[in-house]
Formats: sequence, structure tokens, C-alpha cells
Amino acid sequence: MIENRVHNFNPGPAALPLPVLAEIRDEFLNYKGSGMSITEVSHRSKWFDEVISDAKSRVKRLLKLNDDYHVLFLQGGASMQFCMAPMNLIPGGQPADYVNTGTWSTKAIKEARIQGKKVNVVASSEDKNFCYIPRDISFTKGAAYVHLTSNNTIKGTQWAPFPDTGDVPIVCDMSSDIMSRPFDVAPFGLIYAGAQKNIGPAGVTLVIIRDDMVKRVPENIPTMLKYSTFVSKNSMFNTPPCFAIYTCQVVLKWLEETIGGLENMEKINREKGSILYDVIDNNDFYQGTAEMDSRSFMNVTFRLPSEELEKEFVAEALGNGLGGLKGHRSVGGCRASIYNATGIDAVQTLVDFMKEFARKK
Amino acid sequence: MIENRVHNFNPGPAALPLPVLAEIRDEFLNYKGSGMSITEVSHRSKWFDEVISDAKSRVKRLLKLNDDYHVLFLQGGASMQFCMAPMNLIPGGQPADYVNTGTWSTKAIKEARIQGKKVNVVASSEDKNFCYIPRDISFTKGAAYVHLTSNNTIKGTQWAPFPDTGDVPIVCDMSSDIMSRPFDVAPFGLIYAGAQKNIGPAGVTLVIIRDDMVKRVPENIPTMLKYSTFVSKNSMFNTPPCFAIYTCQVVLKWLEETIGGLENMEKINREKGSILYDVIDNNDFYQGTAEMDSRSFMNVTFRLPSEELEKEFVAEALGNGLGGLKGHRSVGGCRASIYNATGIDAVQTLVDFMKEFARKK
Repeated sequence: MIENRVHNFNPGPAALPLPVLAEIRDEFLNYKGSGMSITEVSHRSKWFDEVISDAKSRVKRLLKLNDDYHVLFLQGGASMQFCMAPMNLIPGGQPADYVNTGTWSTKAIKEARIQGKKVNVVASSEDKNFCYIPRDISFTKGAAYVHLTSNNTIKGTQWAPFPDTGDVPIVCDMSSDIMSRPFDVAPFGLIYAGAQKNIGPAGVTLVIIRDDMVKRVPENIPTMLKYSTFVSKNSMFNTPPCFAIYTCQVVLKWLEETIGGLENMEKINREKGSILYDVIDNNDFYQGTAEMDSRSFMNVTFRLPSEELEKEFVAEALGNGLGGLKGHRSVGGCRASIYNATGIDAVQTLVDFMKEFARKK
Repeated sequence: MIENRVHNFNPGPAALPLPVLAEIRDEFLNYKGSGMSITEVSHRSKWFDEVISDAKSRVKRLLKLNDDYHVLFLQGGASMQFCMAPMNLIPGGQPADYVNTGTWSTKAIKEARIQGKKVNVVASSEDKNFCYIPRDISFTKGAAYVHLTSNNTIKGTQWAPFPDTGDVPIVCDMSSDIMSRPFDVAPFGLIYAGAQKNIGPAGVTLVIIRDDMVKRVPENIPTMLKYSTFVSKNSMFNTPPCFAIYTCQVVLKWLEETIGGLENMEKINREKGSILYDVIDNNDFYQGTAEMDSRSFMNVTFRLPSEELEKEFVAEALGNGLGGLKGHRSVGGCRASIYNATGIDAVQTLVDFMKEFARKK
């Protein structure tokens, strides 16, 4: 391990690519000849303007977005989007469909209802502790949107493929798998993602909104809660979270130029997932918690024979330079988050450790 | 200048202390033996817990806050507070007083009115382009609060002292002078400050709220817009902007341990201001734009005999390693922002340049 760094399986904030971190460190006192740190340059300066323009262009290229889509950088995380999406995009008494696939979907539903919006929960996997992705869903004709959580960080499930919602636009929380694989963006009216899992540090939320959705934004809501504010001001109605956006830009450059785009990224992610799931499936000591056809390639959740062994596993792994393997405090168990920045070498080291740990017990 | 850095007079994002930047750079790949960058550690880890606890403790000590006050770290900047303050703290049909001292006050008033709140603008300096701080104001008895902007970044004015509002709590935007001087916090019910001027990078907002104000928060508003959410969850209802909070913590440590607290900081800030205002007052070439008794010790605004000369001044200054001297695009002229991190040496270099520039013209 370089610089005594651990293999980082944190669920978010999560690993960032080492070359990205090194680039940020190397130019931290003097950003590209500005004589200032990137944290000190004006957000209206040519330096930051290049950062945000480049970040936007890379998002557009990586996701193959046409000009109907606006790329925004907001604050407040996905949790703020749980509030903004219904406030901006559900007009009057129109209903919106939500699919409940776990903790974050549940919170999104709650925030729409707090605002008095009419929410149809058209499918839910709560009956089996959210261990699967619902199929064959009947969506509501004329709904304002269908809300999905593309990857469920806590439960270890992931949509693949996305459901056909007909004419109804999809609003999707992609916090934990954005940029992990290519997908057809056409059915999506709004995509949002807290950066701290796959594209950067905590403190910025990537929002991709289709132009017809922006037209729905009502006039009489607070300025900072309107998507249209950020569209018309290029995400700079007020001072944006500059350092977080800059870090995303360097990550997106790595994704485009070093990895070679989302097709390559998906191949690597599938390989990492397969290596891990193979051990889980071929060793009785480990038990995967998500149903086979709903498994996430970002968050691999599993149990050991007892909670005591799980504690021991997490602690001994950390002692071996493998960090972040504890499951979410709300569900327990173990979880390996293997986002874009976690390399195959880290996953290989983990499975070697898992095999040895099982053998010893 | 060390590392070819410029003297930075940016209005925000602004200069950070060089030792702070160096500390961040030096531990950027491996934060205090964690084997991870501070951008990669979990916000629920012992490492980040120490960061946020230490940052809170330092804020409490520096401002001499008693336990009636909660210290929070939010996102969205002061602009989001323009929305949250009235949403949380003006119950029903109760009026709130606002004093209009410039661009940011005007925006705060607008956001309260968008929500249908009853706003009394009890004083304004708009009649003279906001070049002064209003005195002898009659506040409304029984108002929910009095809103002030302690320092007006764009207009170069600053409250000193704060007005007596009797029993009515003050809600104050201190974005551009928080931690620049000691003050009696007792009359304040809410203080908020975008970090990017005096205490850190863009992307985090320091919020200090008194316990009786938290009790006003209505139940039926979105979770992420309620102060009570952040009070009960120690600013971590969801993932906070970790890197920005960490940077604030290192700045606050510098302020406490290297500078020696707010009394010392104020002395230095007064000296910097005096050096600059002396040149402006004793040289006909420069004209201060704020009235003498309302002058800001954070943002020194001045004009030259013509716009052409102002352009030349800003460009030639930059060529001499003095950056960020252009006035706000909405008012023109020149402005030297001399926040905590801008040293006396930088100000001395600037006045030497100013004298020489005036002599040559």
C-alpha cells in the first residue's frame, strides 16, 4: 500500500482514486499558476470557471447527454433532493409514483408527503426487508413522475434494468451508482446524486434535469429551492461548494481519461462484484443478503454465522489494512462498498482475507 | 512571497492562512494515521467525530457561547439561511423587522416575503446607495426577530456597535465578519455565516442558534429545512460537507492558537483597516465610498478618479502580485477585502503600491 493507505470499503464518504488525491495535494497551495489555492480563488474567476465548465462537459460526455439536459451542482445531498423534487416537479393535486426499495426511498416518500403531495407507493420490497428489486410494477397513468433509488447502499440491491414507465418521466436517486455503468438517459427527467460515493467528496450533489422538467418549477417557492435558479445561473446563483466541485472534476477526468469511460468502468465494476460474490456463493461461511437477481455491484452485503464473528471479521480486516467493512448501523452484518475508486487489487486482497478468515474459524 | 503565492484580497472565496493550507496539504493522502484522506473517512468515524467536535468547541470558546447556544454546520450558504430563518422562526402572522443595508439584506427581505411572511423594513440606507449604517431605529414591539447584516461585503459598511433591540432577538448574517472581532452574543437568537470569507472554504455555513429559537421550529416543514433536525443530529442528519468543516476546524485552531483569539484578531484587523483608510483619507487620488462612521474593517471600498484608471489599477496590482481588488460587478470601483487571513504584510504591500500608482498618475 502506497503512503500507508488502507484499502477503503467505506459506503460514503468513500475511496477516491489515489492519482486524483495526489493531483489535488500537489496543486493545493498554488492552483495552476493562480498563486492561490483552489479554495481561495473566486468562483467568478477564470480558474473556477474552467473547473465547473470542464466538470459539466465531462458529465455530458460520460452520460451521453443531449442539450435537453442541464448539469447542475447543488448542496444538501440527496436528502435535500427528497424535498426539492416534489416541491418543484409535482404540480397541484397530481400524484407521483414512488417505488420503495429501502431506507433512502422511504425517506424520499416521507419528504414528499410532508409537503402534502399525493404519493402512490406503487411497489415496495419492505415485505422481505428490502432484499430485492420489485418487478412487473403497474405505474399510474398521468403521474408527475416515477421515483426510483437506482442502488440501495444499505440493502445491497440495484436496479438492472430500469423499469419501463411509459410516458412518465423517471426521477432517480443515483447517489450510490452514478457513473458506475452506462445507461440510456432518455426516460429520466431528473437524476440526482450526492457526490460522496462515486464522483467526489461530501458537500456537493450532482443534479441532471431535463428542460421540460425545469418548466414545471413553480414561481412562488424560495429561490434556493428552485431548480430554475441554478439552471439560469449555471449553478452559481450564490457561491457554490468550489472545492467539492473541483474534486469531482478531477475524478471525472480520471474516469474519462484513465479508465476510458463508463463502458470500461462497468467492466471493472462487474469483475470486482463477481470476485466478491463468487466467494460468498462458494463458501458456506458467508451468506449474501440480497436476492441474486437484485444484487448490487456497488455495495456487497453479507452475513457471517454470528454477530460476534462479524465483529471479529471487521476488526481483523481493519488490522489487515481493509477498512469500512461494517454494515450500516440500521441492519448490521458486513458490507463491502466497491465504488469506482476501489480497485480490483483491493477486492482481491479482501477475498484472500475472507477465505483465510473462514478457513480459520 | 512563498510558493509564488499572490497577496489575496478576494471578497470570498478568500484567502486562507498559509499554515492552514500547508497542514491540509501535508495530511491530504493520509489523515492522522487513518490511511485515508480526510475526504475519504466516514462522517461517522472517530476521525471526523473529532474534527466536528473540535470545530464546535473552538467556536464556543472563541465567541464565549454558553450552553444555550447550538453550533451547527449546514449547507447552502447565507442564501439558504435567507429562506430558513423566516421559515423556522416567524410563527403565523407575527411580523419580523429587517434592516436593509445592502445587496444581501435586500435578498434576505425578498426571501421572507416570498414565503408570505410579514416583513417590516424598519430602516434602510438605500437612499444613499447603502453607504452608511442606519442609526436610531424604532423596532417593532413583539416582532419575531430583527434581521441585520453585520458587514456589507459589497458596500463596505459594518455595524459597530449593534443596535439595542430590547427583548426582540437579533437574527444576523455575519458571513463577512464572523470571528473578526469579539462581541456580546446575548442579544442574538440566530447567527449565520457562509464560511468562505473568514473561517474556511465555500461549501459550509456556520449556524449558531439559541435554544429558545429552536423551540419555534414548526413541525410541518421539510426535514432538511428545519434547524431542529441539525440540532438533534449534531449537524449529521445526512452526510455533512466533511472537507469544508475540516478546513474550518484547522482555521479555527489557527485563530485560537496562533493568533490568540478574537481580541488579538480584532487588533490586527483594526491595524490593517487603519493602514488602508489612512492612505485613502490622505491622498486625493482615492475616494472612500462608505461614510466614516460606518466603514467596514473587512471590505475597504474606494474609487479612483475614473473607471479607466480603476481598470488600470486592478490590472497593474495583479501584475504586482496583488489579486482580487476589483469592486463587485454590481457597483464597480475597487475593493480590498482584508479578512482574518490577509496579513499586515499584504496590506502594507498594497498601500505601497497605491501610493506609487497615485504618484505616477
